[in-house]
Amino acid sequence: MPQKVRIALDAMGGDFGPSVVVPGAAIALGRHPDAEFLLFGDSASIEEELAAHAALRKSARVIHTDVAVAMHDKPSVALRRGRYKSSMWQAIEAVKKGDADVAVSAGNTGALMAMARFCLRTLPGIDRPAIAATWPTMRGDSVVLDLGATIGGDAHHLKALAVMGAAMASVLFDLERPTVGLLNIGVEEIKGGEEIREAAELLRAMDSRRFEFIGFVEGDGIGKGAADVIVSEGFSGNIALKAAEGTARQLSEYLRAAMSRTWRSKIGYLFARDAFKALKEKMDPNKSNGGVFLGLNGIVVKSHGGTSADGFAYAVDVGYDMVRYDLLTKINQTLNREAGALVSTPPAQEAVS
Amino acid sequence: MPQKVRIALDAMGGDFGPSVVVPGAAIALGRHPDAEFLLFGDSASIEEELAAHAALRKSARVIHTDVAVAMHDKPSVALRRGRYKSSMWQAIEAVKKGDADVAVSAGNTGALMAMARFCLRTLPGIDRPAIAATWPTMRGDSVVLDLGATIGGDAHHLKALAVMGAAMASVLFDLERPTVGLLNIGVEEIKGGEEIREAAELLRAMDSRRFEFIGFVEGDGIGKGAADVIVSEGFSGNIALKAAEGTARQLSEYLRAAMSRTWRSKIGYLFARDAFKALKEKMDPNKSNGGVFLGLNGIVVKSHGGTSADGFAYAVDVGYDMVRYDLLTKINQTLNREAGALVSTPPAQEAVS
Repeated sequence: MPQKVRIALDAMGGDFGPSVVVPGAAIALGRHPDAEFLLFGDSASIEEELAAHAALRKSARVIHTDVAVAMHDKPSVALRRGRYKSSMWQAIEAVKKGDADVAVSAGNTGALMAMARFCLRTLPGIDRPAIAATWPTMRGDSVVLDLGATIGGDAHHLKALAVMGAAMASVLFDLERPTVGLLNIGVEEIKGGEEIREAAELLRAMDSRRFEFIGFVEGDGIGKGAADVIVSEGFSGNIALKAAEGTARQLSEYLRAAMSRTWRSKIGYLFARDAFKALKEKMDPNKSNGGVFLGLNGIVVKSHGGTSADGFAYAVDVGYDMVRYDLLTKINQTLNREAGALVSTPPAQEAVS
Repeated sequence: MPQKVRIALDAMGGDFGPSVVVPGAAIALGRHPDAEFLLFGDSASIEEELAAHAALRKSARVIHTDVAVAMHDKPSVALRRGRYKSSMWQAIEAVKKGDADVAVSAGNTGALMAMARFCLRTLPGIDRPAIAATWPTMRGDSVVLDLGATIGGDAHHLKALAVMGAAMASVLFDLERPTVGLLNIGVEEIKGGEEIREAAELLRAMDSRRFEFIGFVEGDGIGKGAADVIVSEGFSGNIALKAAEGTARQLSEYLRAAMSRTWRSKIGYLFARDAFKALKEKMDPNKSNGGVFLGLNGIVVKSHGGTSADGFAYAVDVGYDMVRYDLLTKINQTLNREAGALVSTPPAQEAVS
């Protein structure tokens, strides 16, 4: 484990670039004084932002780049234009060269995934990377993956996701043997696609000491905290995440409207203001910001593109934790240990290529 | 259109059988005095419940059956044991024979779908049925399908779903040309599986006068009301529904906990009680109860198995509306009109077989 945690930031990523990334890094530095930052991007804009953050200025190095990947560039276009010279690429490359321990970007997901794969390559035994994130549940947090890196995939792909997700849950939540569930549309054995039923058999047969496979979990089981790790191919995983986010936003909106409807409800709101503040904090989508790319020779964290400085800081926190708790080593150990079980498989269709 | 709306009920379906189905029917009858009921199941238990509901007693006929499909019977087992003689089968068969206009059951989904397919058969041009339901959004309700009848499926299957969902939205919401969106994990053309991109091309080329195809919708677009009809294959559709339901339950729980945390929040709750009541009503999952089986020669509505009498009544309402607004004719008209476009396709993998 390094003395300092060295974090490479794509300062041009996201809807707001340095004006969110730099203050976000400053907030994260306040929580992790042993962090160091490499800021890649337009040095003039970065320095301008840094002027307001003296502590960060001291713990950061700025590396100028001329090229920034646009939020709506197709991955292939981003790779062609941005390889080697963009802030996104160079942040990832810093991880590859060993100059940084983790890269964080709020840039476009497809481009970031394409560059990360191209630059860092997948781990031995892993064909396709995944995006994992924490999901707040009634029982605490769970790790959910894949949130959209790879569409579809066979039973072996789902098994690899289980292995990587379990490693992430064990380092994040300090669990010796996290529980793992497969996302499915029914708990009965008869339901679900062929590959999901086969994956269940593989995971049961594996009988891993690193995690406990508990079977199928339905969509409403995620929020219940039915398992520490929820495994799904990327399409359904992304749909689940977005549907849940949409519902949370919708209900917050209903609540806001209800509380400002009458003078009685307005008074009620004043009395219960602290309770609402705590509730809002609990429902804060920023706190779940930070998707971790798993399956690569290095750690890359994706922040929401439209997030605030607070939200970006949470994504930096995730990156920091992954380094501090040595996620990559842990994943590699599990993969090596289960090497016989993870055979190479025909490539799944990919979301971002 | 019939003078009376004749509704066949599987009185033994659901976790509670006649003790929920009968009072549920009584509530629905209160709202729709022109409804008539056929109650299939154990006549002694049904009559016992009917004793407390004089109005329903007068508008209902009880048909005794000895066999009830259990909530956890596999579809194949249910078909073998329950064909012809179960309350579920006979309720569906009443539709086939023309004795009823719609069948409603809270019994197990897989068995109900298997029996409905076997008994009613699919409409010409439809290979696989779908389950559709209304989803409360920020803009009113939307129709979402398929919620789990068929896993996967090609572009033609998705297109058939769009046609049927649009017909349902136009009768339910009285829209001349409802908007239709395809559920996808990104709005950019590059994302999503092959079949979804192909379906988008088909729907665009179709340029139907019956609906307006608006392109892709992400998971969080459903709750925003991005389209009147959201189309997805059954696995992702089910995951989206359950993830949203789970999130709604989770947030209600947070809210409840927040409001009883301190004396201030309790006072606040008392002041805002009416607002909370309205909110609770708005979030009531019972109100979205009632999944409509589409693509069959007859209408079957599935209620949640664990619902209350109020919830079951909502499912009966859905069945009533489908008959009153002549859903089946409307779907058939659209299918006939678009017959050239809906070619028969290789069967998709099925969830319930």
